Amino acid sequence: MVPHVVVLGGGFGGLAAAKGLARADVRVTLIDRSNHHLFQPLLYQVATAALAPSDIAEPLRSILSKQKNVRVRLAEALRIDADQKQVQLQTILGDNTQETLSYDYLVVAMGVQQSWFGRDDWEAVAPGLKSIRDALDIRRRILAAFEQAEWCQDEAERRRLMTFVVVGGGPTGVELAGAIAEIALHTFRTDSRNIDTADSRVVLVEASDSVLGTYPADLRQKALEQLHELKVDVRLGTPASEVDEAGVIIDGERINAKTVLWAAGMKAPAITQTLGTELDRAGRIIVQADTSLPGHPNLFAIGDICHYAKGDSLLPGTAPVALDMGKHVAQCIIADLGQKKRPTFAYFDKGQMATIGRRRAIMQSGPIKLAGTLAWLAWLFIHLMVLVTYRNRLLVFMKWSWAWFSYERASRLIWQPDTD
Amino acid sequence: MVPHVVVLGGGFGGLAAAKGLARADVRVTLIDRSNHHLFQPLLYQVATAALAPSDIAEPLRSILSKQKNVRVRLAEALRIDADQKQVQLQTILGDNTQETLSYDYLVVAMGVQQSWFGRDDWEAVAPGLKSIRDALDIRRRILAAFEQAEWCQDEAERRRLMTFVVVGGGPTGVELAGAIAEIALHTFRTDSRNIDTADSRVVLVEASDSVLGTYPADLRQKALEQLHELKVDVRLGTPASEVDEAGVIIDGERINAKTVLWAAGMKAPAITQTLGTELDRAGRIIVQADTSLPGHPNLFAIGDICHYAKGDSLLPGTAPVALDMGKHVAQCIIADLGQKKRPTFAYFDKGQMATIGRRRAIMQSGPIKLAGTLAWLAWLFIHLMVLVTYRNRLLVFMKWSWAWFSYERASRLIWQPDTD
Repeated sequence: MVPHVVVLGGGFGGLAAAKGLARADVRVTLIDRSNHHLFQPLLYQVATAALAPSDIAEPLRSILSKQKNVRVRLAEALRIDADQKQVQLQTILGDNTQETLSYDYLVVAMGVQQSWFGRDDWEAVAPGLKSIRDALDIRRRILAAFEQAEWCQDEAERRRLMTFVVVGGGPTGVELAGAIAEIALHTFRTDSRNIDTADSRVVLVEASDSVLGTYPADLRQKALEQLHELKVDVRLGTPASEVDEAGVIIDGERINAKTVLWAAGMKAPAITQTLGTELDRAGRIIVQADTSLPGHPNLFAIGDICHYAKGDSLLPGTAPVALDMGKHVAQCIIADLGQKKRPTFAYFDKGQMATIGRRRAIMQSGPIKLAGTLAWLAWLFIHLMVLVTYRNRLLVFMKWSWAWFSYERASRLIWQPDTD
Repeated sequence: MVPHVVVLGGGFGGLAAAKGLARADVRVTLIDRSNHHLFQPLLYQVATAALAPSDIAEPLRSILSKQKNVRVRLAEALRIDADQKQVQLQTILGDNTQETLSYDYLVVAMGVQQSWFGRDDWEAVAPGLKSIRDALDIRRRILAAFEQAEWCQDEAERRRLMTFVVVGGGPTGVELAGAIAEIALHTFRTDSRNIDTADSRVVLVEASDSVLGTYPADLRQKALEQLHELKVDVRLGTPASEVDEAGVIIDGERINAKTVLWAAGMKAPAITQTLGTELDRAGRIIVQADTSLPGHPNLFAIGDICHYAKGDSLLPGTAPVALDMGKHVAQCIIADLGQKKRPTFAYFDKGQMATIGRRRAIMQSGPIKLAGTLAWLAWLFIHLMVLVTYRNRLLVFMKWSWAWFSYERASRLIWQPDTD
């Protein structure tokens, strides 16, 4: 039997690892809870009705259709026994049976989950944005709030319906706040008869003293100005102290809001606790220089789920880092099989970019710093180029072009007769 | 106050009526349970993963964005009081409050629902295809069945997972059966490792003695041949006598099938019973020559929900009929307001067409009868042309072109970790 490589997670890291083994003499089993690879950086566009789920998601089976040494399996990984080299799985479809899978190499690439800082009761009122399901839930909430406001007779309630609070000033929070502000200022305005959606209020709450904390100070300032241009009410240095059905409390002030979205904090999935290895405070697996676990050279953790120290800081939880780690792990396994020395992992930082809205973005790459239209065009170009398949690229390009000229949003559907 | 026209339903009929009143001096309120107009003839393509929901649905608000005399409202119509000229509504979002709306004209255009012939317990195991929600449910069932089959160890159970039964040999049933057969024969074949999806079995059950009963005999025969080419097992003259978790019983024979889809039978929504007017056996409203109700010249029923006798037969429940009726009603109201005589309604039958698969279709228009590639091309062309907006038309054209060359299906997503 050729060595069995089990990959947990079909995100950027796991998929890169599986693909990197295409010509290796191994059997690969790729396990994921959903049947698709998700282009997570554009998930906020599904949540804000600009794109459809299938524009940014592609079935893992079809991505790996031609790579005959990979099998894809829809299942949840429950436990890892690093000593016995076994993973315990539970099937998702059907009868939820459990099963034990033996491996020669294991690649843990399951990403992170939203964390409500121990206030799990906030989850129901302030959903996070990690999966397609989350994005569709958020989309429904935003669309439903405007629908209800249009016909609401009570003024205070109407103001509450037209108030949107986003908690967390990282890239996702900024993107969500910017996109909701644009919808309110442009897209929905001509569609309403009884309200002016431009009267909506979008509040972005950030506990630290600036948004997009990983950027240089001048770019952070630019991002703040761009948010202000979209009339986003940015509250810095003030965590949300309470979140409930009525809205949020920030710095002692209650803000009544029907829609509260959560983009602050993450934690590793509980499976990391079954490893018996050292974790950081967020539950992420602390890995060695080659992304393997101490004492377990055949067990790798890559992407957001790993804690990879580089000097005084950590490698960020971004798609490029996960991709490079996935490729690296494949090369390590190939090196092992050929009884060669494993390559050294070195992440080359290509920079970072965040988008705030139409012609509003910031980017930083080495000494280059951009803000505004140019940064936004760079953002558009790069995101189109890295979208998984040719087909999706074309469709997304068309939808964006259409949205640019029409200010329309293509996916404004409410299909659940939800009792809210 | 200008006259108030209330339109119940934003399908082909209701939307045509609302649009037909664009230049009339009336206030229009369009009520629908969902926020979008749905291009129902292509719904089976969402159910079989070829198109995304937003490709065939468009928000009513954005369709009517420029028509300032229309207001759109998301609500469920519960009761109609024809004497008091009132409709009782229940809001769908928020607190489900009830409200009474007065009208000067009422247009009932709510379509029909699936009917399980009194066996409502069959609904859970054999879902119908009427809404986006239904389509996504069916899509999940089909994809999940193949996912489960890929990893199933038990041969009998694997055969059950790979058996698909479609009950009902009308256009929807034929389209579903054909599309599932194509997926099995082509799309999924290269994606599986442990099974050959071409071994799947698709059974189409029809109680009458032929599929597509409204077509001439020679075209029906062609359709049957095309289904056989796709290896669809067509069972004619045999109703399903039992449907349960294990499968179906047809003509005394039990067919074990994980996936059973229902495309047989329809009934009008219960609201028709509140009218106090004559209904047919399916609960449809029997209307007069001008589509108004006897004794209620200001109350119209159009589209699938109405029973419109023409000679010995009924006008069919199709989009073209609903569209023409909607336009006609708008003209009647305008005539009334100008104190002119209402125009006569005359439906010009443009023909009918049904698709079975790639290059497989039949069509009939007056003396013209086509089958095969030419009918299929005509079907493609006509469906693209009547898609609601320019944007959707382009997107769908691109997706279909891609699917043609690649045999791919663009929307193969399972995003619910459903316990099935």
